[in-house]
Amino acid sequence: MYDIIIIGAGPAGLSAGIYATTRNKNVLIIEKTAIGGMIKDVSEVTHFLSTLNHESGKDFALKLVDQAERYNLNVTYEDVEEVNLIGDVKTVKTKKNTYKSEKIILATGTRPRVIEVEGEKNVLENYFALNASKDGKNYKGKDVYVIGAGDGAVKEAIFLSNIASRVFIIHELSELNCICEFRDKLAATDNIEVIYNTRMTKLYGEEKIEAVELQNIKTGENIKFEAPGAGVFVYAGVVPNTEIYKQIDMMDGFIPTDESMETEIYNVFAAGDIRNKNVRQIGTAVSDGIIAGIAASK
Amino acid sequence: MYDIIIIGAGPAGLSAGIYATTRNKNVLIIEKTAIGGMIKDVSEVTHFLSTLNHESGKDFALKLVDQAERYNLNVTYEDVEEVNLIGDVKTVKTKKNTYKSEKIILATGTRPRVIEVEGEKNVLENYFALNASKDGKNYKGKDVYVIGAGDGAVKEAIFLSNIASRVFIIHELSELNCICEFRDKLAATDNIEVIYNTRMTKLYGEEKIEAVELQNIKTGENIKFEAPGAGVFVYAGVVPNTEIYKQIDMMDGFIPTDESMETEIYNVFAAGDIRNKNVRQIGTAVSDGIIAGIAASK
Repeated sequence: MYDIIIIGAGPAGLSAGIYATTRNKNVLIIEKTAIGGMIKDVSEVTHFLSTLNHESGKDFALKLVDQAERYNLNVTYEDVEEVNLIGDVKTVKTKKNTYKSEKIILATGTRPRVIEVEGEKNVLENYFALNASKDGKNYKGKDVYVIGAGDGAVKEAIFLSNIASRVFIIHELSELNCICEFRDKLAATDNIEVIYNTRMTKLYGEEKIEAVELQNIKTGENIKFEAPGAGVFVYAGVVPNTEIYKQIDMMDGFIPTDESMETEIYNVFAAGDIRNKNVRQIGTAVSDGIIAGIAASK
Repeated sequence: MYDIIIIGAGPAGLSAGIYATTRNKNVLIIEKTAIGGMIKDVSEVTHFLSTLNHESGKDFALKLVDQAERYNLNVTYEDVEEVNLIGDVKTVKTKKNTYKSEKIILATGTRPRVIEVEGEKNVLENYFALNASKDGKNYKGKDVYVIGAGDGAVKEAIFLSNIASRVFIIHELSELNCICEFRDKLAATDNIEVIYNTRMTKLYGEEKIEAVELQNIKTGENIKFEAPGAGVFVYAGVVPNTEIYKQIDMMDGFIPTDESMETEIYNVFAAGDIRNKNVRQIGTAVSDGIIAGIAASK
């Protein structure tokens, strides 16, 4: 029986863990993959206060691992399958264990939105929905496609432009969705081309990508582009990891809370990108985690 | 004429500056002393996500200076004397200049609460209300007094216990106000003694402190302690730097805002410790600044 179970060890969950543990609460953090959440996969952590010049997501996550050890955070690596949030004792079931606590903080964030594209299984598995900071290095001198034009997409496109021969941004709308900083950097980069009003529909090739099919959304016209050996990186938004919290009434899939991060269910808190709010940044996730960690420790 | 003027370059003001500048707003940050706000004076930055082991406030502030340069933040070092927040054009007067903007973000935070103690001017100026991380090194093998028992006070008392011979915490209440982490560390430190239900009333000595007078709040009794060469460090809470914002209706001296950090006055935002809220941490100040910076850029 724990005082507080925190699901998710991204910036929100870790901050909640630090603030609750330093208040002598018996805390368990359950994390599916690794400390850091989605941040460990970005090529560069931008805008968060106190980060260093060109600090990678990987380096940032290493600092979080170190910090978690320093604060003796109790982290178990398991996949949560079911939760019961109602009543005085909350239960969290993973494949192997059932954990119980008085309070619970949901901090499972979001995951990349999946885009459906036709193609051979092998090609889809190995050359589609790649990670720029991890897989980018394999595309030296080749063409790459980035799907999406928000902050994350354009940031990674700029990162890839330093490796790849050419970067094509495939974007469904007629304007970029990103902040001016990235728009200006993109404009100053010669080897990135934005293809507007377009979606990717098909990948040709068996062993590798040979060509991609793009559809003009306005005309419906399909065009086949030769793209031998290309890779496709998908940054087409995110969806909240909230499916297992069936007892909460969601707003557009996100969890509503009050100012103390408490949900409609007593002693159930939510923090970070999972929460229904306007701004989703590392800094706002950290703040949510702090407030939830303190509130749950009361 | 600026798009946005930000007053204060602590974590809130700097975050607001980064988020507004990367949205191509013409931003001026006006800072009284130096980048970092009160954080640059703490012995160690604790609990904020991604900080290093025993990271000092000074080192943390250096990272912020570097980050401000990287983002080309436009910072001027001046003392704001008067503001006019009403109307379409906001004006900010310093000793030398008058600046104008469409929007304004108030992020002037708090300052240490001043404690009144009797004593010679020379002694009060040089041995009272000292800064642990700056002045602590001068008290090797001597006795020091820390006034206050909140997180900041106990953290600095623990820092000083590694330098000074003995540390006396002078506290008006009968229990510590700090989180368990610091309470436990204090309990494990041999040379710190907490004197409860007590206030410091007088310093004896002309060139240096010779003795201190402590008053038991419950009995009214004054006791004189010999304290040759002692130093006094005051961490007795904070007060908001809101006196110049006369056009805003305060709550307990702090500025009320909505969820977007906007005050009751159109196009006037507040962020960080200056804001009326429950939790004042670096991480919550950063989040306020992000939200205000984005909202003011719209």
